[in-house]
Amino acid sequence: MAYHYLDYQQLHAFCSAAFRCYGFDEKTAGEITDILLAADLNGIESHGVQRMVRYDYEISCGMVDMDAKPEIVFETPISAVIDAHNGMGQVVGRMAMQMAIEKAKKVGCGFVSVRRSNHYGIAGYYTEMAAAEDLMGLCMTNTEAIMVPTYGKQPMIGTNPIALAMPADPVPFSFDCATTVVPRGKFEVFTKRGDPVPLGWGVDENGCDSTDAPRVLANIISKAGGGILPLGGSSELMGSHKGYGLGVICELFCGILAGGTTAEGIYKTEDGGSGICHSFIAVDYGIFGNKAEIKKSFSEYLQKLRDSDKAAGQERIYTHGEKEVDMRVLRKEKGVPVNDKTLEELRAIEKKLGSFAVPFPREL
Amino acid sequence: MAYHYLDYQQLHAFCSAAFRCYGFDEKTAGEITDILLAADLNGIESHGVQRMVRYDYEISCGMVDMDAKPEIVFETPISAVIDAHNGMGQVVGRMAMQMAIEKAKKVGCGFVSVRRSNHYGIAGYYTEMAAAEDLMGLCMTNTEAIMVPTYGKQPMIGTNPIALAMPADPVPFSFDCATTVVPRGKFEVFTKRGDPVPLGWGVDENGCDSTDAPRVLANIISKAGGGILPLGGSSELMGSHKGYGLGVICELFCGILAGGTTAEGIYKTEDGGSGICHSFIAVDYGIFGNKAEIKKSFSEYLQKLRDSDKAAGQERIYTHGEKEVDMRVLRKEKGVPVNDKTLEELRAIEKKLGSFAVPFPREL
Repeated sequence: MAYHYLDYQQLHAFCSAAFRCYGFDEKTAGEITDILLAADLNGIESHGVQRMVRYDYEISCGMVDMDAKPEIVFETPISAVIDAHNGMGQVVGRMAMQMAIEKAKKVGCGFVSVRRSNHYGIAGYYTEMAAAEDLMGLCMTNTEAIMVPTYGKQPMIGTNPIALAMPADPVPFSFDCATTVVPRGKFEVFTKRGDPVPLGWGVDENGCDSTDAPRVLANIISKAGGGILPLGGSSELMGSHKGYGLGVICELFCGILAGGTTAEGIYKTEDGGSGICHSFIAVDYGIFGNKAEIKKSFSEYLQKLRDSDKAAGQERIYTHGEKEVDMRVLRKEKGVPVNDKTLEELRAIEKKLGSFAVPFPREL
Repeated sequence: MAYHYLDYQQLHAFCSAAFRCYGFDEKTAGEITDILLAADLNGIESHGVQRMVRYDYEISCGMVDMDAKPEIVFETPISAVIDAHNGMGQVVGRMAMQMAIEKAKKVGCGFVSVRRSNHYGIAGYYTEMAAAEDLMGLCMTNTEAIMVPTYGKQPMIGTNPIALAMPADPVPFSFDCATTVVPRGKFEVFTKRGDPVPLGWGVDENGCDSTDAPRVLANIISKAGGGILPLGGSSELMGSHKGYGLGVICELFCGILAGGTTAEGIYKTEDGGSGICHSFIAVDYGIFGNKAEIKKSFSEYLQKLRDSDKAAGQERIYTHGEKEVDMRVLRKEKGVPVNDKTLEELRAIEKKLGSFAVPFPREL
């Protein structure tokens, strides 16, 4: 599969124009595109422009309601619950984290859970919104069930990322990880390559360890049983119960606390929406003392980690978010890699929506 | 190694009497013993009565300061930072979680970080204090550095457990897991058995995967390099960076936000204390709406997990905390298993401290 390196600014203009065609105003279309391309800039291809085709489908078929107005259904000085009414995930996501940030600035912390939303891109985008305001940000989402519980064979939990960002110098700490050992996209990559996946990534329809990527994927799609394993693999010996528990914690903060849907009910709702739920938390770390001192001591600890002795054959120890900062610079300069299939899908969207009055992004 | 099953009530009376001999008042001695034996009742032998010998040493040598009065050094309506002044971890631990609980009851949430403490037992004890008050509880602690960062060979992070408890019927959800793939105690068990540990648990002095338990342990003790791997093992392929990041998040909430010591500095402080730090968080989940409805929907989701299809050869899917509830009942009835070595240590403590006016716990 060949990659094409597309000019970032032109790709941004193209996607923004597409979102304007769907009916979003200019500001909102730009913000959705910022979140979408943040994934590509960070090297998370699965959540980037390759999802345009999926957003196109979900908007076209009405699963994403273009007219939805997010509604605050419960609120306290430190918290809120928002019903997104099946609107675009990125729109309610930005609104919810902004609300958490405002609460944190006023009273020290803000917890905002969202129900009846849709796919919202990468969790790390929202936590970095908080970090940019000199706050700690946390974010979780649930997704369609794909993780089997430890010793189970039925997907009951989403890939359920947990993200946390905290200001630090020279770059913020920014953790954003699925609680499954890998996301579904990794199985797709190994299937395309024709390679077996490592033992410990997935189980077959009987709940037995399987390295057969196409079989695990086909079973997930046909709901024949089996799925992706929790971080820690298939047995308690390697910590399977830990990833499983972290996945359940995401379901608690998202589906349960928002009064919405847990993973096993997503894409099976009565109103035809996806049912996806999110959680946004902002904490002003000034509630623990002098912010400058806290930030300095955290920055020093992260530097100690980077400076610590390397394993044989390794040249560098990264702290979380560092690689992504490097990659953003590189991709803004050298282009965003887009594979053949995604390029074809973008061409089809252009054709379907008619002239955007913006050129198709040029290859670098 | 043979196990002796000691009567729970008598073992409790014995340990309480020992703590009274060290100088704690009756109420405090009983509370410390509750926390200590909660580990044995839950099946976490490493944190239970086998640590009496270590507490005896740390109190005797003055590392644990018997006269310490925990001091609130910073406070807001939703937060506090406590300097434990090198006092007993369990004493400041109970006080800090109680403070977080009171704040949560008043304003919806409470964040309390503690510096200059000592080993405080199992994190899950404190989160269950919050759950018993119908709140969500979170707790983290750092420990002496034992985890190597992904691609590193120098221990820079503790075993750093994350615990979360949330009320549910018929039993609360209670997650309590080290962010290393396994705690150090597992290496000790495999060493005693003479068995190699599974690949992915530890690395040798060069940072290479090692199954040689005594070698990894000896290296940790002599600080020759190498250590225990993050949850997810040694490579990003299996999610090593995820466990590593979760371990750093514990350091942030504990050592950094408390203005204390991070793992690499623990047991190396200038004042001779251990430097261990903790984080206690309580959240009134009523900030998200009707508590009865939230608890009911969470209980139903947990039941769906337990009822979901089992993998071939598996009879039961547990939710977190369920096994421990069963084990507590069993051990209160059938006795607490104590190995030969621990029994000998308890005898030595009895001899050293003189008559307790309580009998040595009888075997069942």
